[in-house]
Amino acid sequence: MPPPAARPSLAPLFDPRAIAIYGASSDPSKIGGRPLDFLKKSGFDGPLYPINPKASQIQGLPAYPTMAAVPDAVDLAIVAVPAPAVLAALEDCAAHGVRGAVVLSAGFAEVGGPGVAWQEEMSALARRTGMRVVGPNCMGLINVRRRLLGTFTPSAAGFGLVPGRISVVSQSGAFGGYCLSLIRQRGLGLNLWITTGNQCDVDVADCIEHFALDAETQVIAGYLEAAADKERLFHALALARERGKRVVIMKVGRSEAGAHATASHTASLAGSDQVYEGVFRQFGVLRARSIDEFFDTAYAAASPAPLPQGRRLGVLTVSGGVGALMADVAADVGLDMPPMPEDAQRRLKALLPFCGPRNPVDMTAQLVNDLTLFERNFEVMLQEGRYDVIVAFLSSVGLVTELGRGILEQLQTVLQRFPDRTVIASMLASTEVRQMFEQAGVMLFDEPTRAVRAAGALVHYGQQLQKRALADMPPPLPAGALPPPVQVVNEVEAKTVLASAGIPVVQERVAMSEDDAVRAAADIGYPVVLKIASPDIAHKSEIGGVIVGVRNAAQVRAAFRTLRERAHTYAPAARIDGVVVAQMAPPGVETILGVAHDPVFGAVLMFGVGGVFVEAFQDVAFRVAPFGVAEARAMIEEVRGKVLLAGVRGQPPADMEALASAIAALSVYAAQHADAIESIDINPLLVLPRGQGVLALDALIVPRSAA
Amino acid sequence: MPPPAARPSLAPLFDPRAIAIYGASSDPSKIGGRPLDFLKKSGFDGPLYPINPKASQIQGLPAYPTMAAVPDAVDLAIVAVPAPAVLAALEDCAAHGVRGAVVLSAGFAEVGGPGVAWQEEMSALARRTGMRVVGPNCMGLINVRRRLLGTFTPSAAGFGLVPGRISVVSQSGAFGGYCLSLIRQRGLGLNLWITTGNQCDVDVADCIEHFALDAETQVIAGYLEAAADKERLFHALALARERGKRVVIMKVGRSEAGAHATASHTASLAGSDQVYEGVFRQFGVLRARSIDEFFDTAYAAASPAPLPQGRRLGVLTVSGGVGALMADVAADVGLDMPPMPEDAQRRLKALLPFCGPRNPVDMTAQLVNDLTLFERNFEVMLQEGRYDVIVAFLSSVGLVTELGRGILEQLQTVLQRFPDRTVIASMLASTEVRQMFEQAGVMLFDEPTRAVRAAGALVHYGQQLQKRALADMPPPLPAGALPPPVQVVNEVEAKTVLASAGIPVVQERVAMSEDDAVRAAADIGYPVVLKIASPDIAHKSEIGGVIVGVRNAAQVRAAFRTLRERAHTYAPAARIDGVVVAQMAPPGVETILGVAHDPVFGAVLMFGVGGVFVEAFQDVAFRVAPFGVAEARAMIEEVRGKVLLAGVRGQPPADMEALASAIAALSVYAAQHADAIESIDINPLLVLPRGQGVLALDALIVPRSAA
Repeated sequence: MPPPAARPSLAPLFDPRAIAIYGASSDPSKIGGRPLDFLKKSGFDGPLYPINPKASQIQGLPAYPTMAAVPDAVDLAIVAVPAPAVLAALEDCAAHGVRGAVVLSAGFAEVGGPGVAWQEEMSALARRTGMRVVGPNCMGLINVRRRLLGTFTPSAAGFGLVPGRISVVSQSGAFGGYCLSLIRQRGLGLNLWITTGNQCDVDVADCIEHFALDAETQVIAGYLEAAADKERLFHALALARERGKRVVIMKVGRSEAGAHATASHTASLAGSDQVYEGVFRQFGVLRARSIDEFFDTAYAAASPAPLPQGRRLGVLTVSGGVGALMADVAADVGLDMPPMPEDAQRRLKALLPFCGPRNPVDMTAQLVNDLTLFERNFEVMLQEGRYDVIVAFLSSVGLVTELGRGILEQLQTVLQRFPDRTVIASMLASTEVRQMFEQAGVMLFDEPTRAVRAAGALVHYGQQLQKRALADMPPPLPAGALPPPVQVVNEVEAKTVLASAGIPVVQERVAMSEDDAVRAAADIGYPVVLKIASPDIAHKSEIGGVIVGVRNAAQVRAAFRTLRERAHTYAPAARIDGVVVAQMAPPGVETILGVAHDPVFGAVLMFGVGGVFVEAFQDVAFRVAPFGVAEARAMIEEVRGKVLLAGVRGQPPADMEALASAIAALSVYAAQHADAIESIDINPLLVLPRGQGVLALDALIVPRSAA
Repeated sequence: MPPPAARPSLAPLFDPRAIAIYGASSDPSKIGGRPLDFLKKSGFDGPLYPINPKASQIQGLPAYPTMAAVPDAVDLAIVAVPAPAVLAALEDCAAHGVRGAVVLSAGFAEVGGPGVAWQEEMSALARRTGMRVVGPNCMGLINVRRRLLGTFTPSAAGFGLVPGRISVVSQSGAFGGYCLSLIRQRGLGLNLWITTGNQCDVDVADCIEHFALDAETQVIAGYLEAAADKERLFHALALARERGKRVVIMKVGRSEAGAHATASHTASLAGSDQVYEGVFRQFGVLRARSIDEFFDTAYAAASPAPLPQGRRLGVLTVSGGVGALMADVAADVGLDMPPMPEDAQRRLKALLPFCGPRNPVDMTAQLVNDLTLFERNFEVMLQEGRYDVIVAFLSSVGLVTELGRGILEQLQTVLQRFPDRTVIASMLASTEVRQMFEQAGVMLFDEPTRAVRAAGALVHYGQQLQKRALADMPPPLPAGALPPPVQVVNEVEAKTVLASAGIPVVQERVAMSEDDAVRAAADIGYPVVLKIASPDIAHKSEIGGVIVGVRNAAQVRAAFRTLRERAHTYAPAARIDGVVVAQMAPPGVETILGVAHDPVFGAVLMFGVGGVFVEAFQDVAFRVAPFGVAEARAMIEEVRGKVLLAGVRGQPPADMEALASAIAALSVYAAQHADAIESIDINPLLVLPRGQGVLALDALIVPRSAA
């Protein structure tokens, strides 16, 4: 995929030298008064220029009628004039060298009417002049290090923000403001914050790209309603992964009701939620399912601690019960909890006879009587257990400052010898103890299961970092690949096309007569399957259009006649291309592989296992085409039905590698012909035992022109 | 099930007039000093008698060498002497009329050695004397209203507890202590608290029963590692449900690693986790999967608000995005979110043109400018939307005391007109606003998705309350029901037994010769299925022991011979009882119905849909036998595979009622013969289209004597 056309940087927005405020008001409770009030009180370090033709002074600063009167070069404008006056203000900005504008005013596409056209003109202005425009109908932006509060959200009142490594982008202003309150409440370190509102120019993808390139940003936390532009979103997410940024996204609309709520909230067209899920997995983005999870993930990801190098979790606890609870959640999030080696268990037993030495390692409440138990247990776990990440549950020890300090000191002493390991503490703690831990860069969670989930998130990011090194190139398209049909064709022709694209298909021929069918069967070898060949009958078996286990010439003739009769009876209007004579498929696992056209993401691949269960459980994985075999393997891993491929009830394991190759090959073909294909269904794609490959048994290709 | 033998009340433990402390120490940091220190400082209202032969005064109180010297009637003893001296102390107590004792001392079954025998003697003493004994190796108990701190957990230091409607029982002392810290931190109202430790006498079931009978307790929050006695646990849970108590239980061990951690933590034998899951569902208990969920549920359940009368959720929000997120979670927890009626939507639009009027109802950030929007939107939702429960997300409004108060006042005004509705607020709030809400009895959650989950919990408890009215009696056992076989028999004999118990089975006969088979087939009607009949071949199809679609006498003879040959070849040692000739089953959905023997709970029923997927996905539901059709219906509802019963791909809906009847009938039979049955497998139990019943196609009964 070629990189999208570069757009001017967002640097003037986040890092301006001087700021002008259009519609600046003397009343700090008004939308035009609040940003100026905030900027003055927060101590922004650059000059501020209120623009208001009706006043000479505003909030103690000289005011100017237009930018022409401002005796300085201004790079950022905050625009809070009524909607009908916004465009003129932006023109004024662009004409005087302003490189970025934040439009707080509402009354555009979100309310309809003339606002729609105004917003379109703002987009055009941004494209024409290169001035980047945020909004309209947004809550503005913040740069904590510059103490730049370019916002009117009440959540920013009094500043109250500490500089850190998390940058936030929210398409929703209300969500962005709520986030800001939570960031303050939790004391999280924030770098940049922006809400994009109606996105006439700057959108979420732009902001992710900017954060990806920003040296101070380690974590990108985003709230997304709908992506506007696939190429730019992909470019931004790829860049973030390449730069080792840790991305967590809240994307609502998992449920039908949720999707509806979003649709009524924005004018954007949302892609199917499962496709977004696939995109996030494809780019290593974590998707949060609650506000707690969103911020827990961001908090952990912003830690200076190293990322885990594997998924081995050790749990150290003062309560066997809580340890077991943590083990339950570790299993939920896919972490491994291997037991301590036998001799290490003996050493732990020697330290404390009634401890639980396995994993979780249970120090019991005895810790309170002998704090040094922590250091000794912790060290043995790191040394002998070789866990990649340890979560230590210490109950309410942190409520006593001296105990909390003692634990922290022991932790730091041991970690000096194991600087590549990740540790997360979980306990109730006083504010003093909490600050002590944060300053030392040690993660601390109140709730032990949330600590385990955070460990899972860090393991995920650690794996992404390792994956970055391994390029997963899509395979080349085979030289003789045929173009997709321009109208719906029968299954044999569809499989001919797919075979040319590198998908193994069942051996078969279309026969036009009984004699022809007998010859075909003899060539292919008995037993055979006979099926009606028609582009108009998608579900042949529902009208009895498939006869299996045909064993000799006489049976071929009888089956041929039966099929023609059934087609005549049940589908009199269908075009009949003849009868397919096909090799009887060997035993294997039935899967379904498909291509769909997504309005935002274009050609997307879908994979699932097991016929009716795909529909019943919606147990499928999506990815955007094209991709390589590693991504195809990840798709297979993602569906619960994968257990059937591993071999149940004495079946041999299926040929996963051939399956992954077929998925990747189809993704390449689908991407190459994205504009021509509405959908492809290979159902079933039969996966044979390991080493024997896959076989497409039936296929349907719907061209876009026919959809 | 007859009620278990009544045991003496726990009242003397929780509500004593006077307390003696064995092993009382002058050092308040010691296990024998701390409870006395706590009791004195907390202001317990009864007399305290330190028992210690080595001192005349302890912590300012006169001390006594033994109970004989105490000049008063004592009903509760707290025992903190070393393990070898505990039994003598308990004998002394019992001899002097003490009715309850809490043994804090450790060194018993949990460490092995002589402690095991000591603990057994303590159990015997409790049984013999009727004195109730808590522990040993426990953290003691608390009665908040009496300011009774009979514990040495540091979490109780300084009291810091407010009286409320939640009572807590924890098998684990460490977990119990941690809970206490969290209860203080969250400001939850607590009534009674107890940890049961090694459970020589008083166990979790006893405490649940006591709480169920306690007028001040509305919520029972329990931490359970393993149940000791099925009858008493069931009696306690049934009593709690009957009394309308709301029960939330933390039971760890969902994962394999978790189960292991528990097993190393206690000596108790844990039943399979899925069976516990079934028990909790059977008794309307909510199971928490995290500490947050445990306390969120307890907090909501303790509210004076009415329980929802249905599952219709309305969401009122100031952020469309958060509203959509809440809708996602509502779908996860099974709440319905019907839209507002069309005309009500128009009324809301009239209030605020750019609101989202559907459901979620989005007031937008405009609320901050016009606080009365809340009252008007809220009222329309209750009046027109008729939601059973409303969750209102108000972002960070509660951080400003005046705004928080304004919301609360509006809320109360409207609720006066709808006293049967449940409302939950979600916002960031100052301590002052939080207290205002709590005092007004209005639930308040920081995190909106946790508020939605709490709504789900309240809906669950509301349904339990309604269910209580509908008795779900197990059906009677049919008069001619045969006893289970005493050794493994072939499938035909197994089905004969099941048919006598009320399970419809396929029409079939065992044939001993070809002629016999032809006669049987003619009687049954073609086509038929032929199968090897053997008690020794459990998986017939794996050796080709099933031939379907047999259509005439010649095919019957051929199939008969083939089966005998295959049995001879592949299972030469198996006893062959002949060949089963069976009716060819009509189309239907394959399910599996089974009975297993659980070491704690006895006969348990298992149900799942769909052959190989039961094994692959472990998508099954458990219940303890016996039960009625309503519970059987709940089992069916619980498995994801139920979608296949509803009819997918144009299949007709299956006969759910016949299925529920068969499940209930088997549960009655299994309970009746619990001691004689190791397991029953009906696989498949074919469910025919609605109105056509079910058919057991294959069955295996393993008697306990043969296991």
